[in-house]
Amino acid sequence: MALIVQKYGGTSVGSAERIKNVAKRVAKTRAEGHDVVVVVSAMSGETNRLVALAHEMQEFPDPRELDVVLATGEQVTIGLLAMALKNIGVDAKSYTGWQVAVKTDAAHTKARIEEIDDEAMRADLKAGRVVIVAGFQGINPNGDISTLGRGGSDTSAVALAAALKADECQIYTDVDGVYTTDPRVVPEARRLDTVTFEEMLELASLGSKVLQIRSVEFAGKYKVRLRVLSSLQEGGEGTLITFEEDNNMERAAVSGIAFDKNQARVNVRGVPDKPGVAYQILGAVADANIEVDMIIQNVGENGTTDFSFTVPRADYKPTLALMEQLKDSLGATDIDGDDAVCKVSIVGLGMRSHVGVASKMFRTLAEENINIEMISTSEIKVSVLINEKYMELATRVLHKAFDLA
Amino acid sequence: MALIVQKYGGTSVGSAERIKNVAKRVAKTRAEGHDVVVVVSAMSGETNRLVALAHEMQEFPDPRELDVVLATGEQVTIGLLAMALKNIGVDAKSYTGWQVAVKTDAAHTKARIEEIDDEAMRADLKAGRVVIVAGFQGINPNGDISTLGRGGSDTSAVALAAALKADECQIYTDVDGVYTTDPRVVPEARRLDTVTFEEMLELASLGSKVLQIRSVEFAGKYKVRLRVLSSLQEGGEGTLITFEEDNNMERAAVSGIAFDKNQARVNVRGVPDKPGVAYQILGAVADANIEVDMIIQNVGENGTTDFSFTVPRADYKPTLALMEQLKDSLGATDIDGDDAVCKVSIVGLGMRSHVGVASKMFRTLAEENINIEMISTSEIKVSVLINEKYMELATRVLHKAFDLA
Repeated sequence: MALIVQKYGGTSVGSAERIKNVAKRVAKTRAEGHDVVVVVSAMSGETNRLVALAHEMQEFPDPRELDVVLATGEQVTIGLLAMALKNIGVDAKSYTGWQVAVKTDAAHTKARIEEIDDEAMRADLKAGRVVIVAGFQGINPNGDISTLGRGGSDTSAVALAAALKADECQIYTDVDGVYTTDPRVVPEARRLDTVTFEEMLELASLGSKVLQIRSVEFAGKYKVRLRVLSSLQEGGEGTLITFEEDNNMERAAVSGIAFDKNQARVNVRGVPDKPGVAYQILGAVADANIEVDMIIQNVGENGTTDFSFTVPRADYKPTLALMEQLKDSLGATDIDGDDAVCKVSIVGLGMRSHVGVASKMFRTLAEENINIEMISTSEIKVSVLINEKYMELATRVLHKAFDLA
Repeated sequence: MALIVQKYGGTSVGSAERIKNVAKRVAKTRAEGHDVVVVVSAMSGETNRLVALAHEMQEFPDPRELDVVLATGEQVTIGLLAMALKNIGVDAKSYTGWQVAVKTDAAHTKARIEEIDDEAMRADLKAGRVVIVAGFQGINPNGDISTLGRGGSDTSAVALAAALKADECQIYTDVDGVYTTDPRVVPEARRLDTVTFEEMLELASLGSKVLQIRSVEFAGKYKVRLRVLSSLQEGGEGTLITFEEDNNMERAAVSGIAFDKNQARVNVRGVPDKPGVAYQILGAVADANIEVDMIIQNVGENGTTDFSFTVPRADYKPTLALMEQLKDSLGATDIDGDDAVCKVSIVGLGMRSHVGVASKMFRTLAEENINIEMISTSEIKVSVLINEKYMELATRVLHKAFDLA
């Protein structure tokens, strides 16, 4: 008898019928003798509907009030799933974020979990109940409703698994595991039985969409056994995220290719080429709680330089507006940007022991006449920023070039 | 400078555009120098959508979980209205029921307000903010989300007005006041400038739909100055609900005609005609938190009698099921009923000093061949239960017979 945290995303709870299927799956785990905590997202489409309503009210919706509105999506799902479980004879009780309580910091729309009270949940589990928790949300030090940002339900699930010392955290999604790349783009893509935590971290952060990055970080930090499974098909083993490097020397250099359209490039042109400029720019962006990904500073000329960085696409306009405000104090000549870009990355733990991986990537893209706008590298990945229209082509040719099929 | 509580119903906040209009109206009241607390309902259609989803999960949705789901409707509206106010430069802050906190008893889906914390709201008002509160909801002694039942937002508004000792509670709705009857049924219906609390109580309880009955009771108990106004047209005075009888001796016998389709009749046939039977039946119904309206016990024959009562239509099937359970212990021969009935009532404070009002009502209906199934009377009203297909006809002929045009 184990304690299992299961997380079901928006597609898995996207209709009344699907919520009933989730109930059946939970009941089955329960019937196997396990204690179950279920974390759910909003029904698919619901969060987008609410965001659209908010944008009809305000161009940049007030973050506190946006969280009030968005948190309703998951709240509907927890109630419905509790009913569906009771309907098939499984006792269950729902919890909103504040009811748990999932305590977060005060950064609205992208709050971080600081502490989880597990007392009430434990009492329910002990009483034989399935505990259902609204993902994506918590309560902040002001007593306000907070949300964790898109995909935050994965983080909720892993954080709950860590707080409850669960035996496994199972992320049910609409794919049956982690693939070498998105099978919708490359039909030859292959499911990985295991993937290391570090690879997963890169794959997640690069937009593989299977798991939210913070959930993988959390799992790594608290050593939560994490498995990605399909909610649509029965019996698969999915992909287990491991925390030890395997010692297979024959490991392929590249284990997966990730791509991410949620990118926009901002250029701050003609700033004085002197110390402190990067901090002045990126400090302001960080203060606005906007995450910067890739960063380039051109070689200076005539005492000035161009500074470029990428941000999530939703933050593109606010970032441009912020840079316009700072333009004079930075001494910049121009602020511009491009939100029709994407990032394509090759990831693999084996890369450490193989030379020439990056140059093979650049050559492959050059052969297709795909221009590289920015490059960033880590020990186990190489990312390039390219025009988004080449995203699928780049992914396909790289998948082939690195023998991933 | 006064403190005004304004309540906007589902139709008034039924679209992004209408929420913006509400924001303008609130801003205007604010600009006149008043402090404003706004209570809002769910956007029209939203509660029905959520109820339908719940019924797809369970035939009789779990009440605790139903409240979790339903409370999201108002939560969306408060966030959106706060954004709309901020967008036009009016500082505002939203409160869910638990954030206020509106403390209720533990009766899910029809909870009663027991206490309201006004501290946080007062601090916001003092800081110059508009306070926006989700109607219809609260938090119960278990820390669970509770709802007050359909139309509960009116009650929330009056209860908040009482707790804050507001100068006036304004109920904005899609009609511009209280009418002699529903103008959609009788085009000649006339708006009343004032209506007494007692008349309003009867009109509300009988389904005039303008105000929820509990809100009127609350207003009477705490002497809250209550006004019904149109949210769709500007500048009207609406109808003021007064607490003193006016001394106009020439007052018409009947001031309004109400009708209510939310009725279903349950018959418990062939029960022993002995003391305690009524209690046995109605006690069980009350324990199930179902409100009984009209009650008839036929004259006994051969030691048995038939017992009939009406309940809200949504409670019809649960009540039948409950009676079937009790059938043997009651010694009843049959349980049946009819949910195609409606109640039509004439209401008027002047009725007290006029004889023959009831008989005039019965004669008028008889002339149209409308059969009366049940009758109930109070000092200021006479109600009849009839087949729902005659509802409009009965209302029209009674409106004419009592010279209300």
